[in-house]
Amino acid sequence: MQLVVTELTEDSITTQAPILPNRNLHQTGFAGSLYALAAATGWALVHHKMLMVGAEGVLVVKTATIVYRRPVKADIRLTAELSERQKTQPVLEQLRQNGKAEYPVTIYFESANKRCGHLEATYVFVAGH
Amino acid sequence: MQLVVTELTEDSITTQAPILPNRNLHQTGFAGSLYALAAATGWALVHHKMLMVGAEGVLVVKTATIVYRRPVKADIRLTAELSERQKTQPVLEQLRQNGKAEYPVTIYFESANKRCGHLEATYVFVAGH
Repeated sequence: MQLVVTELTEDSITTQAPILPNRNLHQTGFAGSLYALAAATGWALVHHKMLMVGAEGVLVVKTATIVYRRPVKADIRLTAELSERQKTQPVLEQLRQNGKAEYPVTIYFESANKRCGHLEATYVFVAGH
Repeated sequence: MQLVVTELTEDSITTQAPILPNRNLHQTGFAGSLYALAAATGWALVHHKMLMVGAEGVLVVKTATIVYRRPVKADIRLTAELSERQKTQPVLEQLRQNGKAEYPVTIYFESANKRCGHLEATYVFVAGH
């Protein structure tokens, strides 16, 4: 996959991956790789957020829907951003009350400056060690 | 991934994969691997079907939704089956008329005899060479 984080703030992330190791037999982006790159990008964003607020636990994907709009023919750039509500929600209080917190995140992937699809993933952070 | 087809008929498929190369850092099934295994299983089923009816073209995933129900802790078994309508639809005629055919397929994955989740994928076969 060779995913690299190129920008990371408390509320947004940008990653990149080369097309070469992520191709299918048609020489375009492999559906499974694009999914894994997008899921990992969203995971890194939420994981970083939880680290920043000092939460301890495990972060997993619960459900995810991917849409492939057009073939990926060159290197891949992925972006994701937390929603306004997620940026300000009192995570630690929520974790104390519920033991977990859900994070729906949309991750967009583009190639050669064209959006090629997106992943809507719901991550669940389960408090604990 | 090490995906192996263990059973393949015109309308159903069973595949298997070992847990070892498909684990995450929690030693359970990696979300990205489970997606790729399931997507490839459904792809192999539809691809085989198209070969059997003599269709020529390219098969891609258009959209897919994955649901992770419980952690995968042992080797993985995946199954998928075409719907009654898909089993009998006149594929070649449809391809001649529309140039493409859509195949929604649900792929189930289980481990240690427990269903752990499923993928609902829509494949598109585009006629051509």
